Amino acid sequence: MRFLTAGESHGPMLTAIIEGFPANLPLTADFINQELARRQMGYGRGGRMQIEQDQVEILSGVRNGLTMGSPITLQIKNRDWVNWAEVMSPAPGADMTTKKITRPRPGHADLTGSIKYDQGDMRNILERSSARETASRVAVGAVAKALLKEMDIMVFGRVVAIGGIKDTNPLPGIPWEELFSQVENSPVRCFDEQVSENILRMIDQAKKEGDTLGGVFEIIITKVPAGLGSHVHWERKIDGRLAGALMSIQGIKGVEVGLGIQSADQPGSKVHDEIGYEENNGFFRYSNHAGGIEGGMSNGEPIVIRAAMKPIPTLMKPLNTVDRATKEKLTAQVERSDVCAVPAACVVGEAVAAWEIARSLQEKFGGDTLEEMKERVKKYRIYLRQV
Amino acid sequence: MRFLTAGESHGPMLTAIIEGFPANLPLTADFINQELARRQMGYGRGGRMQIEQDQVEILSGVRNGLTMGSPITLQIKNRDWVNWAEVMSPAPGADMTTKKITRPRPGHADLTGSIKYDQGDMRNILERSSARETASRVAVGAVAKALLKEMDIMVFGRVVAIGGIKDTNPLPGIPWEELFSQVENSPVRCFDEQVSENILRMIDQAKKEGDTLGGVFEIIITKVPAGLGSHVHWERKIDGRLAGALMSIQGIKGVEVGLGIQSADQPGSKVHDEIGYEENNGFFRYSNHAGGIEGGMSNGEPIVIRAAMKPIPTLMKPLNTVDRATKEKLTAQVERSDVCAVPAACVVGEAVAAWEIARSLQEKFGGDTLEEMKERVKKYRIYLRQV
Amino acid sequence: MRFLTAGESHGPMLTAIIEGFPANLPLTADFINQELARRQMGYGRGGRMQIEQDQVEILSGVRNGLTMGSPITLQIKNRDWVNWAEVMSPAPGADMTTKKITRPRPGHADLTGSIKYDQGDMRNILERSSARETASRVAVGAVAKALLKEMDIMVFGRVVAIGGIKDTNPLPGIPWEELFSQVENSPVRCFDEQVSENILRMIDQAKKEGDTLGGVFEIIITKVPAGLGSHVHWERKIDGRLAGALMSIQGIKGVEVGLGIQSADQPGSKVHDEIGYEENNGFFRYSNHAGGIEGGMSNGEPIVIRAAMKPIPTLMKPLNTVDRATKEKLTAQVERSDVCAVPAACVVGEAVAAWEIARSLQEKFGGDTLEEMKERVKKYRIYLRQV
Amino acid sequence: MRFLTAGESHGPMLTAIIEGFPANLPLTADFINQELARRQMGYGRGGRMQIEQDQVEILSGVRNGLTMGSPITLQIKNRDWVNWAEVMSPAPGADMTTKKITRPRPGHADLTGSIKYDQGDMRNILERSSARETASRVAVGAVAKALLKEMDIMVFGRVVAIGGIKDTNPLPGIPWEELFSQVENSPVRCFDEQVSENILRMIDQAKKEGDTLGGVFEIIITKVPAGLGSHVHWERKIDGRLAGALMSIQGIKGVEVGLGIQSADQPGSKVHDEIGYEENNGFFRYSNHAGGIEGGMSNGEPIVIRAAMKPIPTLMKPLNTVDRATKEKLTAQVERSDVCAVPAACVVGEAVAAWEIARSLQEKFGGDTLEEMKERVKKYRIYLRQV
Repeated sequence: MRFLTAGESHGPMLTAIIEGFPANLPLTADFINQELARRQMGYGRGGRMQIEQDQVEILSGVRNGLTMGSPITLQIKNRDWVNWAEVMSPAPGADMTTKKITRPRPGHADLTGSIKYDQGDMRNILERSSARETASRVAVGAVAKALLKEMDIMVFGRVVAIGGIKDTNPLPGIPWEELFSQVENSPVRCFDEQVSENILRMIDQAKKEGDTLGGVFEIIITKVPAGLGSHVHWERKIDGRLAGALMSIQGIKGVEVGLGIQSADQPGSKVHDEIGYEENNGFFRYSNHAGGIEGGMSNGEPIVIRAAMKPIPTLMKPLNTVDRATKEKLTAQVERSDVCAVPAACVVGEAVAAWEIARSLQEKFGGDTLEEMKERVKKYRIYLRQV
Repeated sequence: MRFLTAGESHGPMLTAIIEGFPANLPLTADFINQELARRQMGYGRGGRMQIEQDQVEILSGVRNGLTMGSPITLQIKNRDWVNWAEVMSPAPGADMTTKKITRPRPGHADLTGSIKYDQGDMRNILERSSARETASRVAVGAVAKALLKEMDIMVFGRVVAIGGIKDTNPLPGIPWEELFSQVENSPVRCFDEQVSENILRMIDQAKKEGDTLGGVFEIIITKVPAGLGSHVHWERKIDGRLAGALMSIQGIKGVEVGLGIQSADQPGSKVHDEIGYEENNGFFRYSNHAGGIEGGMSNGEPIVIRAAMKPIPTLMKPLNTVDRATKEKLTAQVERSDVCAVPAACVVGEAVAAWEIARSLQEKFGGDTLEEMKERVKKYRIYLRQV
Repeated sequence: MRFLTAGESHGPMLTAIIEGFPANLPLTADFINQELARRQMGYGRGGRMQIEQDQVEILSGVRNGLTMGSPITLQIKNRDWVNWAEVMSPAPGADMTTKKITRPRPGHADLTGSIKYDQGDMRNILERSSARETASRVAVGAVAKALLKEMDIMVFGRVVAIGGIKDTNPLPGIPWEELFSQVENSPVRCFDEQVSENILRMIDQAKKEGDTLGGVFEIIITKVPAGLGSHVHWERKIDGRLAGALMSIQGIKGVEVGLGIQSADQPGSKVHDEIGYEENNGFFRYSNHAGGIEGGMSNGEPIVIRAAMKPIPTLMKPLNTVDRATKEKLTAQVERSDVCAVPAACVVGEAVAAWEIARSLQEKFGGDTLEEMKERVKKYRIYLRQV
Repeated sequence: MRFLTAGESHGPMLTAIIEGFPANLPLTADFINQELARRQMGYGRGGRMQIEQDQVEILSGVRNGLTMGSPITLQIKNRDWVNWAEVMSPAPGADMTTKKITRPRPGHADLTGSIKYDQGDMRNILERSSARETASRVAVGAVAKALLKEMDIMVFGRVVAIGGIKDTNPLPGIPWEELFSQVENSPVRCFDEQVSENILRMIDQAKKEGDTLGGVFEIIITKVPAGLGSHVHWERKIDGRLAGALMSIQGIKGVEVGLGIQSADQPGSKVHDEIGYEENNGFFRYSNHAGGIEGGMSNGEPIVIRAAMKPIPTLMKPLNTVDRATKEKLTAQVERSDVCAVPAACVVGEAVAAWEIARSLQEKFGGDTLEEMKERVKKYRIYLRQV
């Protein structure tokens, strides 16, 4: 199970190909579009979100609403392409002056990318480094989610901090579905209503000041069977894979599993999760500080991972920089941008986590068809309860 | 450039094979042994470290002190093998009772590994999941370091917190070599002498209580040319790769780049590093909050990454668990162990980071021989200064 | 450098994404379309070729006629899609009856694919296993060719046998360009005019009989610098890679390098190519029985590989088979098809070989930009002449 | 499932690491040694075979005769190491003069390897390019065979031609075990006794003339369930993988599946295998011209692949070459060598084919343990009979 994504931010479309996916999974554009819409929500987004209204087209690998085992092509058209066709034309003769960028924005790929790939026009870098690319990953992740759903595995994210305002309350003991639904209703994907409101004010304030905000989101994955990933070789450890995937999201500067960095401050007797056993249900942990992962493997408890996002680097009150061509000191290019993209990044986080779980699942269970996978997972779950 | 590691903790030896390494790199066992020795130092290690005194043998890929381009085999013998030969015998007839383990230790791979691989004796899991495996990765990382050294790239780690005692001082403006040398002399790899002493006391205290401690280490990589990694596809981003590598080290629960999680709390105007230009030296940043990585690429500033390690899960004051065979409630198996392994993990962190940088370097510069790589890097650095 | 292809034969389009390609390579749809047109030529093709007239669209990774280093999306629309939209609809409600296939054709993926992926309708298999997919690979190969051309490396194929009629003449000592141009003018890509004519008659005869023909093509790659691939590890050997790539083309059942299978019949003294040296030009071979590859590496002589294609399995005079649903004995489904696809397969062979050479080139020379690659290759060629 | 091999021909040892293998497979050194012994047999081998008497040691991944899921280390010591320790010493101070080689042997990696990796002493190349390396692959293949055996899949090779003397008889309709056992008793692994004798004479003759011989071997794999590999993406096609693996064996210049190159000469009506159905046994083919592979997938019939090996390039009657250092015309270095290595290569062919089948099996069935794999394969075979 692997995928490639392609496409420039203002190019004609984003494209992704997923290869190695099982056959017979129900999959519709609608299902993927819901995830795309979730990425586009969130208080603090700029005007572009309105233009976008991302819609996926499934162009291969699916017939009559079911996957066929062949590569799946997903395409998200740029609804504003008509206004960019001359600037971004792949054919010779593109308009290379109107939208040329030579002033790199601090915190972005602009400068380094333009040096690495020797591009005088930094547009050729930011068009790809832009977080717009994450729409592809959300689409791919939606396909993974559709598979996981068939095994009752749910992947869900919530925002726990924006601009320094934090929701530090422990999660209440309510059913996941209820909790998730409450988060879904928050304009900043925050469970606590009071924190939500404080964040909204914080975003308004930042916007007024031409500034941007970062934050932290948390991904929770429920009903993952124990034993995904492996302790036997470093790059098959599921925490390493999840960390790599989350860190690769635009703007992420920190990743934690379970207690995360806090676990470094406390003695072992307070950190590790004691083991219990329940007849007919098998082993369990009395706490979940490990975030559902021990020894590089899912341990059967909910997987809990967090990612910290830096503020968006495109400020309306631009930072100092240097023109790449003239070496003149200037302020950075101002591109239309959001104040805060943490709620969106949270949805991207769900997507990349879903992919890694689905991939690890297929490694363990194989399976060319949904039926095979489901049956094997079911059998393994019975074994887990009896072991 | 890729590698595999193998070997059980009490098996006859650890083995690693590195494939795709350039020819003509000077490489000796002594150089690697120094790194292995660094891993074994550190206040708070138990008795086993004395037995180990790891020595590598180079068994292929090197002749007359120079690599040949062929796969490099590294082997670290278990000096205590004679006492384990019956228990760990690969041949049928091993002693499967003397050292059998059925009581899983919370926080370890024991339980999940034994279920996943259906091993009644959890020894078959912990022998591989043990941090002993990291000796292989340190050996592999030493080979990467030898290559990086030829390009003047240095990889160095320091401990910034243990058991909640933190060194929060900014680094002084002294040369890296001086700073590194001071860290090297601390028994806990800590730059600040007062913090070092406080940590030593903390470790003594924890030992007395049969408890264990975690902490945080920081890896600094200097003189990395701008442009390693890439913004164009998610799993080629160098921050993602480094995060994945660090998170795969035993006990790591959090990873940060630059300001890391803190960057989520501050407005964009305080976080992003403004860009400057110096004739003959090219572009630079006025600060390094990004930790040397923007847009998934090295940006020319020192790369700074941190990892948080949970306390060692093997406590002398064991936690509650359940016997896998009998389902009886018990306390966990007590295995000889350390109180604190953060200084050792820091050396492992250097190793895995060195590998990822070397790998990204080879992707950008190709090179079957050291001479080719050096020449291309040199040429690129001239370009960086002139661009 | 890697790629994925996607798309069903009668789906809306074929798509390919190329990731890891250097920046600043001139690339136009026209250049790729020429290769697509070459794949569609060839005497003995059925009516579908007319409908197709493949046209590629470049949808990412290229701006103003130059690659940018970002993933390249290539799309080939199905010009007949309007007639298939209901049958092949990805959305639920597709017409699953009109074109349903339950009678597997011997020699095709139909039966096994339908079992592996549990598809009652074999259309879901043949839509992807069809040689239509090779249009994607030709497009991808064209991109590789554009890169190789910049290094003066040419990849060219000719047909040496169809239906048992063979061109066994040694190649004349004329310039490659001349030779290639003569082949290009043959309706069956055959250098020898008399053999060409005999083959045309053979094809007419087979068509009359409702039968199909296979054949053999040869790929010649000129000016490959010595040292691509490697002897040090088995799956980096360039002959292994080329063989794997050629064998993966639909219908290929045999692959040879240089003298190929004939080299098994002769004593060593007749087979190996003696080595000479020419000042200012470096080492060379007095003959090229090895086909330009020794020890898994290009040796500087032209690379010569051959592939044998079985006859097309879709016969107008259909073979016996069994209905998958009813188990009734029947004759196979008759789908519109060609009599002989060897000239087309030859163009596909060029494409996959070009890709493997380009990939090996990038491994040796690295290079994010065309300029870097060209400069490194140039420097290496100077070294080759002086060594 | 993946592996790396390492080791120079006259270095201290060959090493291989296998990663990703299922747990609980019975595996002993004896089983692997039998395969190593089979590789060393064969009429026409030189004196070195006697020295070698390869013995594997299992150094990780196996305890008490069962795999544990952790990486498996295999080591084959060089019994003649004491005589090579100074020449091949990895440490500085090796004897670089006694065994230095500057005269490249035509047909070998010597010249190109020495240029690519910039090695003045070609010993540094031939030590790795030597067919001695295939001992590692045979050991790895033996592990794969042990797994396949548990699923009743057998991999077996026979020689069908040496030096132009061919066994063109169709295989008799006797049980595979009987056939294999007869081959096993031939000094040249040839089923037909008369052909065997003719070949022996041919080898004697070549030896007398200081010449060498090549030949062709055939690998037969029985009871492979239909559906390994896939038609959906080119590099998952099982014929491509097998071809790549076989072509990567030292000296192989041609690879065929089933009828192979012959299938190019005949009309489709004669080539494709008609499909039948037998109640309780499922689908079958009336012939097996396809060699058990259609559409890149195993089709349930025995897999039959062939490889053509060129004569050994190290001749006692050496070929003309040029000294790399002096550019003087000379004859090639004479190294002790065999007259004919086709029977040995045949055993290597079994090994690499076994690996590819095992790998494809694991992709389809997943499985961390033998029990899981066996159960899933069993279930799938029931499905195959009922489908």
